Amino acid sequence: MQRYFIGEEHWGHRKVTIYGEDLHHISRVMRMTSGDQLIGIHPEEGPALCKILNVTEDGAECAVLEWLEEDKELPIQVTIVAGLGKGDKLEHIVQKGTELGAFEFIPFQADRSVAKWDKKKVPKKIQRLQKIAKEASEQSERSHVPEVCTVHTLQQVSQLKDRYHWWLYAYENEARKKEHQSLATRLKLVRPGEKVIVIFGPEGGFSEKEVSHLEEKNFLSVRLGPRILRMETAPLYFLSSLSYVFEEER
Amino acid sequence: MQRYFIGEEHWGHRKVTIYGEDLHHISRVMRMTSGDQLIGIHPEEGPALCKILNVTEDGAECAVLEWLEEDKELPIQVTIVAGLGKGDKLEHIVQKGTELGAFEFIPFQADRSVAKWDKKKVPKKIQRLQKIAKEASEQSERSHVPEVCTVHTLQQVSQLKDRYHWWLYAYENEARKKEHQSLATRLKLVRPGEKVIVIFGPEGGFSEKEVSHLEEKNFLSVRLGPRILRMETAPLYFLSSLSYVFEEER
Repeated sequence: MQRYFIGEEHWGHRKVTIYGEDLHHISRVMRMTSGDQLIGIHPEEGPALCKILNVTEDGAECAVLEWLEEDKELPIQVTIVAGLGKGDKLEHIVQKGTELGAFEFIPFQADRSVAKWDKKKVPKKIQRLQKIAKEASEQSERSHVPEVCTVHTLQQVSQLKDRYHWWLYAYENEARKKEHQSLATRLKLVRPGEKVIVIFGPEGGFSEKEVSHLEEKNFLSVRLGPRILRMETAPLYFLSSLSYVFEEER
Repeated sequence: MQRYFIGEEHWGHRKVTIYGEDLHHISRVMRMTSGDQLIGIHPEEGPALCKILNVTEDGAECAVLEWLEEDKELPIQVTIVAGLGKGDKLEHIVQKGTELGAFEFIPFQADRSVAKWDKKKVPKKIQRLQKIAKEASEQSERSHVPEVCTVHTLQQVSQLKDRYHWWLYAYENEARKKEHQSLATRLKLVRPGEKVIVIFGPEGGFSEKEVSHLEEKNFLSVRLGPRILRMETAPLYFLSSLSYVFEEER
């Protein structure tokens, strides 16, 4: 069933009205009319089964039939920090990372980021990534849309530490070491309900200076299997493993 | 260090010669000359540290300095069967699936595949996917290049069953069920050294007919977390979880 994230201000007593792009999607793309059902997602209350009462150019009025009990959110809140990459790599990370349950994304300007974002264009780029996150949330049937934060420096990222229980970074050299730190050693410490921040470098990996900074700030390095993963594949490995451990193995 | 997969016929006694596209890459792209080192990968013996003795237009002659003991291959041989998808989805699956350790790929013409491949164009498309697999193997530092097989029908796929120890398919409806079959229940049965075949549907999922066929042939359905994944994300979840279980948790 089609799902729409609807701002808090549009919900009334067992009623909700849909406007804007979602209204266009309902009337023009899906061609839904009164009597048709959809799932409306309240930012706090979660998903509700709704029935369309009336569709006009001004809005789609729906009755709330039933609040649904769904459990599709990862029990760990994961913040993915990703170095700016070439082409559409960040878009891939946000789209697939959202499907895989990420809670939040922070792009960061790494020493070896070949891509540099023009300051004036940052708000537009973030807006576009935010739209991708919303669409991927709807498609993957989630009840939370991850926030895409503005571009940070590594220093700004490490200052956010206190908000999280665990601070990790994916260091490709771990994959090359015989005596590596396995991802399982780290994940075994994490408990449901906790918040994790994990940093991924750009195409060329972290600079030595960045690694020293992360070590100094007590970020823990993780290995993601013995193979060297591309920058856009590594966050997907991390999220998939976390989902496996907390949603499939338990 | 740069890695090249080199056909068996080009290896001599503690010597190897590199030709063709790889020679071009060595001389023109990397601008390597005598004395430079690279890793040559023998199809049976695996990776060897090599030193260039001489580069001409006819070939790059190298001395084998040392056979390397690397363990970068997943201990389970996974065959990924993926429905034909729109655009570059299959290319994504092959590229990222190779990074994540897949052993082999089989594209299949599913009932709901919107993409139809013109018969005449199949060999060229497979050749292109094979090239992507080779490049991804080099980049991720593997010692095996996954084979990309030609397009199969589902019937042809299920006839291959006897070659494998485990037969799975990723069924999106498992993600929507309360009483689902967890991926962990299935993976707990798999032992290192075994072969697994796992089938993924196209954008629209499997048809009812295909599901009946797979059930009849005793393929086991798996859930990949509670969220609905895109066709190109599902194989990456499967391979990442397998790597986590067999390479990080053990």
